[in-house]
Amino acid sequence: AELRRLMGPAWRFAPGAANGITDVAGVTVGHSTLLDPEQGTCTGVTVVQPCPGVVHRPVAAAVHVINGYGKSVGLMQIEELGELESPIALTGVFGIPDVLRALVDHLLVEDPDLGSEKSGRSVNAVVMECNDSRMHDPRITRPGAAEVAEAIRGASTGPVPQGPVGAGVGMSTFGFAGGIGTSSRVLPLDGSAHHIGALVLTNFGRREDLVIAGRPVGQQLLPATATAASLGGSVIVVLATDLPTTSAQLKRLARRAQNGLARTGCTTSGSSGEVVLAFSTARGPDLAREPLDLAFAAVAECVEEAVLNSLCHSVRVHGRADRFREPFPVERLPELLGAR
Amino acid sequence: AELRRLMGPAWRFAPGAANGITDVAGVTVGHSTLLDPEQGTCTGVTVVQPCPGVVHRPVAAAVHVINGYGKSVGLMQIEELGELESPIALTGVFGIPDVLRALVDHLLVEDPDLGSEKSGRSVNAVVMECNDSRMHDPRITRPGAAEVAEAIRGASTGPVPQGPVGAGVGMSTFGFAGGIGTSSRVLPLDGSAHHIGALVLTNFGRREDLVIAGRPVGQQLLPATATAASLGGSVIVVLATDLPTTSAQLKRLARRAQNGLARTGCTTSGSSGEVVLAFSTARGPDLAREPLDLAFAAVAECVEEAVLNSLCHSVRVHGRADRFREPFPVERLPELLGAR
Amino acid sequence: AELRRLMGPAWRFAPGAANGITDVAGVTVGHSTLLDPEQGTCTGVTVVQPCPGVVHRPVAAAVHVINGYGKSVGLMQIEELGELESPIALTGVFGIPDVLRALVDHLLVEDPDLGSEKSGRSVNAVVMECNDSRMHDPRITRPGAAEVAEAIRGASTGPVPQGPVGAGVGMSTFGFAGGIGTSSRVLPLDGSAHHIGALVLTNFGRREDLVIAGRPVGQQLLPATATAASLGGSVIVVLATDLPTTSAQLKRLARRAQNGLARTGCTTSGSSGEVVLAFSTARGPDLAREPLDLAFAAVAECVEEAVLNSLCHSVRVHGRADRFREPFPVERLPELLGAR
Amino acid sequence: AELRRLMGPAWRFAPGAANGITDVAGVTVGHSTLLDPEQGTCTGVTVVQPCPGVVHRPVAAAVHVINGYGKSVGLMQIEELGELESPIALTGVFGIPDVLRALVDHLLVEDPDLGSEKSGRSVNAVVMECNDSRMHDPRITRPGAAEVAEAIRGASTGPVPQGPVGAGVGMSTFGFAGGIGTSSRVLPLDGSAHHIGALVLTNFGRREDLVIAGRPVGQQLLPATATAASLGGSVIVVLATDLPTTSAQLKRLARRAQNGLARTGCTTSGSSGEVVLAFSTARGPDLAREPLDLAFAAVAECVEEAVLNSLCHSVRVHGRADRFREPFPVERLPELLGAR
Repeated sequence: AELRRLMGPAWRFAPGAANGITDVAGVTVGHSTLLDPEQGTCTGVTVVQPCPGVVHRPVAAAVHVINGYGKSVGLMQIEELGELESPIALTGVFGIPDVLRALVDHLLVEDPDLGSEKSGRSVNAVVMECNDSRMHDPRITRPGAAEVAEAIRGASTGPVPQGPVGAGVGMSTFGFAGGIGTSSRVLPLDGSAHHIGALVLTNFGRREDLVIAGRPVGQQLLPATATAASLGGSVIVVLATDLPTTSAQLKRLARRAQNGLARTGCTTSGSSGEVVLAFSTARGPDLAREPLDLAFAAVAECVEEAVLNSLCHSVRVHGRADRFREPFPVERLPELLGAR
Repeated sequence: AELRRLMGPAWRFAPGAANGITDVAGVTVGHSTLLDPEQGTCTGVTVVQPCPGVVHRPVAAAVHVINGYGKSVGLMQIEELGELESPIALTGVFGIPDVLRALVDHLLVEDPDLGSEKSGRSVNAVVMECNDSRMHDPRITRPGAAEVAEAIRGASTGPVPQGPVGAGVGMSTFGFAGGIGTSSRVLPLDGSAHHIGALVLTNFGRREDLVIAGRPVGQQLLPATATAASLGGSVIVVLATDLPTTSAQLKRLARRAQNGLARTGCTTSGSSGEVVLAFSTARGPDLAREPLDLAFAAVAECVEEAVLNSLCHSVRVHGRADRFREPFPVERLPELLGAR
Repeated sequence: AELRRLMGPAWRFAPGAANGITDVAGVTVGHSTLLDPEQGTCTGVTVVQPCPGVVHRPVAAAVHVINGYGKSVGLMQIEELGELESPIALTGVFGIPDVLRALVDHLLVEDPDLGSEKSGRSVNAVVMECNDSRMHDPRITRPGAAEVAEAIRGASTGPVPQGPVGAGVGMSTFGFAGGIGTSSRVLPLDGSAHHIGALVLTNFGRREDLVIAGRPVGQQLLPATATAASLGGSVIVVLATDLPTTSAQLKRLARRAQNGLARTGCTTSGSSGEVVLAFSTARGPDLAREPLDLAFAAVAECVEEAVLNSLCHSVRVHGRADRFREPFPVERLPELLGAR
Repeated sequence: AELRRLMGPAWRFAPGAANGITDVAGVTVGHSTLLDPEQGTCTGVTVVQPCPGVVHRPVAAAVHVINGYGKSVGLMQIEELGELESPIALTGVFGIPDVLRALVDHLLVEDPDLGSEKSGRSVNAVVMECNDSRMHDPRITRPGAAEVAEAIRGASTGPVPQGPVGAGVGMSTFGFAGGIGTSSRVLPLDGSAHHIGALVLTNFGRREDLVIAGRPVGQQLLPATATAASLGGSVIVVLATDLPTTSAQLKRLARRAQNGLARTGCTTSGSSGEVVLAFSTARGPDLAREPLDLAFAAVAECVEEAVLNSLCHSVRVHGRADRFREPFPVERLPELLGAR
C-alpha cells in the first residue's frame, strides 16, 4: 500500500482484494520452505493451483519465453495444445527432478486413469525454476515429495506470503533477498469486474539496475564495496486471469509481461531463464479484441508490482557457506523516491 | 543532450558521435517527405542502408516480432537465412506496394544478375511500415519511385534528421507529432569501441501513457478535452551494430528492444505492428557470450532514447482534412521531470 | 481419376465433387496467364478467394513456414491475429509489388472504410510467390492490375484449371512444366460431410527426385543428357476447410502439408520458399480433438495429390530466350507405376 | 541390407560402416532394458552421447518440434543457446523424473563445478520420451539411477542394438513391437567423407498406415480382427552429424526429418510427441550453403530407414497384464514389396 502510494499515478488499475494472483477466483498458492544453513539448505517449493482438480478439467494456457536459459519442464505441450492440466510447481533448478516426480505422483493419485492399463494416458506436469544454488547446496538436500505435499496441502486463497519464502527463499533480486512476489489488477469490463493476477519468482538483476517509479534507486543502494555480481539471473512469471480467453490470446497477454519486468530495470540477461506462463480460469465465449488492450496494459502494471512486492517483503536470509542475502531497505522507499 | 542531462544516471552507456544509428560505420540514412495538406498528402519514405552495396554482400540479420499486426515485407527470408540483402525502407502502410516496387527496381539496377535468364536469382527487399492514414489519404497519392530514389540518393552518415520527417511525417507518438528517432551507445569491449544504434519509426501510445525517466509526464500533458484516442499504433525498430554477431545473437539482441519501448510507457497494444529488425555490419568471428549482456543492456537504453528523441524533434504537422498533430512541448521537459 | 486408380489403396479418403479446393463451399479460384515468348513473358496470377467479401468478414487462418526462402507478403499479421481478410493472390516473385498494389486497390474499392479519414483502417493483403524468372523476364513485363482484375473476375467454383496456367505458367515441377494443382478430400464427421481442399503452386524438385506411389519414377524419366539443375525451388500450399477450426488448429493442419509434399519426393531444399496458408470458412463452435487426426491424415493425401495433379495437367511451355519446359508424360504413368 | 536391396534406387546415399548414428565419430549409444511381465515391467533407457565429456565442451545443437504433445525435458535452453551440454537419455514418459534425476546426478559427478558454492552453475540435462504405459505399469517400477548408469556404462560405438530394446522395449510401431532404430548416410563433400546419422524411438502409427517403398504394406498386414487402435503415438528423432554446422543450420536439418517420417506413412497425429534434436560434433568453420541441400536430402533417407530398421529388428514383447506386441514379419518383406 505504501509502495502504491509512492508510485502515484503511474499505476492506473486498482488492485484486487488480496492484491495477489489469488484474486482470480479458484487460484490457490502454497509454499514449503527448506532452510537450514548449517546443512547448506536454503531452497523450497511454491505451488500455484489454477483451480481444484485441474487434471480433470484443463484450463486454457500459453507460454512465452523471453529468454530460454532455463530448465522449466512441461512447456512444450502447453505450446502445442494450449492447455494446462497440472498445478504449477516452482523450485530451485536442481530441485526440478524430485519436484517433478512428486508432482507426477500427486497427479497419479488424483487421477487413477493416468498410466492405467486401459488408457495409458500420460500427464503434463509443470515445474518451473530459478537457480538458487549460490545459497543452497544441491549435493546435500533437494526438495521433493514432502515439500510438494506441504505446498499443495497448504495452498489457499487470500493473501500470499511473499519475499524469501517457498521457492523464493534462496533467490536474489537486484542483489537483495527477494523471491516470491504477487499482485493483481481489476478490469471493469462488460459491467462486471474481471481480474488479472501475477505471481513471480524473481532471481535477477544487479543492485545498480533496480529502478522504482523510474528512479534508478539501485544506484543509491550500492554497498561501499560493490561485489562482483554476475549479470545473469532468471525470473518466472505466472499470470492468471478470469477473462474468457483463448490460448492464443493468453500468449499475447504473456508477451506483455516483459513490459512490466523492463520497468523494474530488468535487462533480460543472456543467461536468464525468463519465462511466462499464463492461464485463464474462465470457460466461456472468447474475449473480443477491444478489452484485450486493457488487459495488456494491466499485465505490465501487475508484473511490475509483483517484482517490487518480492523486494518489499524481503528479510535477511542465511544460506550455504555462511552466505547472506540482505533485505531490501523498504523503510527507505519514501526517501529513495524523493518523498513525493 | 538536454534530455540526457535530465535522465541523469538512468542511462549508463555513452552515446556515439552522432547519437544515431549512423554511428555504426557504414550505415547511412536518408529521408523523402511528401507533405501537401491541400492534397491530403502527409507521408514519406526513410531508407536505412546497412552498408554500400548490401545486395552484393548480405549482412547477418534477424527479426523479432513483438506484436505482428502489421504489413512489413521481407521478414520471412531474414528469419530463415539470417541475412539482409537489401536496404530497409520505411513508409506508411499504404505506401508498401509502390515503395517495394521502387526498391526492387533499384536493386535490379544495382545487380544485373537478379532475375536474369542465367541465374533467375530473386532478391529479398525489405519494407517496413506504420499506419499514417489518419494524416495521409492513400487514395490520392502514395510514395513510390521518386521518393525511394530521393531517400537513397540523400542517405548519409552523421546526424539523422528526426521527428516528423521522411516516413515519420504522418505518425503520432503518444498523441504528438513524432515519427523518426535515433540514438546510439558505445560499448567498450576487447579494448576497442563498438557501437549499437537504433532508429525507430514511432506511431504508438496515447498521451496519458507517456513515461519519461519513470515519471508519468503524459498525464500532465492531457488536453483540457481529451480526445477519444485509440490504444492502437505501431513502432518499427531498426537496430545496427558493429559487434561481430551471428543471426541468432542478433535475434536475442532484438528481443531486448521491448525493454526500451516499455520504459517509455509503451503497452504493446493488440493492434500494434511492433517489429524489430537487427543487423550487424561486422564480418568476423562471433562474439563471446559475456559481452552480449552489455549489448543487451545498451539496446534498451538506445531504443528508449530513440523513441524520446522522436518526440524531442517534434514540430506541428498539418495533414489531411485539416487535421493537425501538435508538437511535444520539449521546452517543458525540465519542469515535467521535476527539474532534477 | 486415372492417377487415383493407379494409386490404389494408398489414398483412403474420397475426393470431393470437383477434386479441388473449390469443394469447400464458398471458395473460388481464378487465373490470369501472361504468355508471350517473343517478349520474354511467361508469368501470371492466380487468386483464391476464401469467401465472398472476405474483407468484411475475415476467416480463421494460420500460416506454417516449412522453409522461409521466399518473399510472400501478409503472413505476419495472420500469425498474430489468426485471421485472413483478403483474397490470396499467387504470382511470380518479381510480380509481388504490382500484384500487391492491385490487390490493395481492389480492397480499397471493396471497402470504402479502408484508409479513410475516419477509421484510418489498414488491410492485410496476401500475395504469395514462387520464382518463375528462369522462364519470364521481370525486366520487361510484370503482372499487375489487369491480371489481378481478370483473375478475380473469372474466379469460380467447380473444377479448377491446372498445370501451367495462371501463376503456374512459368514454374518447373520436378523439371517438368507443372504449376497449379488442386485436390480435395471428404471427411465424414458428425454425420455430415466436411471437406479439406488444397491448391498448390509447385516450382520445386529435380527430375530424379520425383516419387509417385513410392516409385522413384523420376529416375526413369531422366533425359539422355541430364541438365545441371539446381536443387532449389519452392512450393506454396493453400489449404481450405469447412471444418470449424480455430487458428491454432489450422496451424496444426498446415504443419501436416509437409507430409504430403514429402511423399512426392520433395526434399525441402534450403533455397525453397515452402509456405502453407490454411483457412477455415466455417463460423461456429470449435472442432473437438478427435476428428482433427482424420483431418491431419487427409491433408497429407490432399497435398500429395495436388502436387501430382499439377504434373498430370502439364503441357509444353515456351518461355524467355526460347527456353522450354517439357510436359510430364502422363500417358506413361501406368507403365512407370508397373501397371498395377 | 535386405531392406536396402528391396528399396532399390529410392535411396541414393550410401550408409556408413555401422549404418547407425555411431558412424558419426565420437557418438556412442547404450541401452538398459527393464522387462519383467509378471511385475508389469516393460520399459527402459537408451542414452546417446554426442562425445566424451560433453558437459565440459558443449556441441552445437537445435530442436525442432513437429508436434508438441510430449514431455521431453531440456529443449528450451537448446533453442535459446544452440548448445547441447548433456548426453541425451530416452525413456518412457513416466520414467522422465527419475531418469532426469539420475542424469543430473551423473553430470554432478562428472563436473564438480556444477551447483558449487563458487559458480552456482546449472546444467541442462536432456531426457526425451514416448509413452510406453500400455505395456508398462508406471505405478510399480520406473527406470532410474541403475538403468541410466547401465546405459552410460555400456555406451559404445559400432552397431547399435535395435528394435524393442532400451527405451524402445515397450513401444509400438505401426502396431508392431518396434522401438529403437538407427541409420546413417555418407556425404562426399570437399573431398572428404562426412556423416549424418539418425536414431529414432518409434511409438506411432496404426498398422494400416505403414508404407514401405511407397507400398501400403500395412494394409496387407491387418489382423483378421482389427483392434481398435488409437491414432496417437510419438516419435523422437536424434540426428548427429560431423558436418561443421551452426545451430541455425542444424535446426533446418532437423525440420527435414519430417520428410523421412512421412515416407513411412506417418500422419503426425495430434497427440504425438514428435520431436527432433540435432547436434554436430564438428568444431570448425561453418558449412557453406550448397552442401546443406545434400544433407537435407540425406536426412530424409536416414530417418526413413531408421524407422524401418526399428521394425526390422522387431521381436515379440510381453508386457503388463499379459499384453503382447507382435513382431513385424520381416521375412515377408520381399513378398510385400512385390519381390522386385
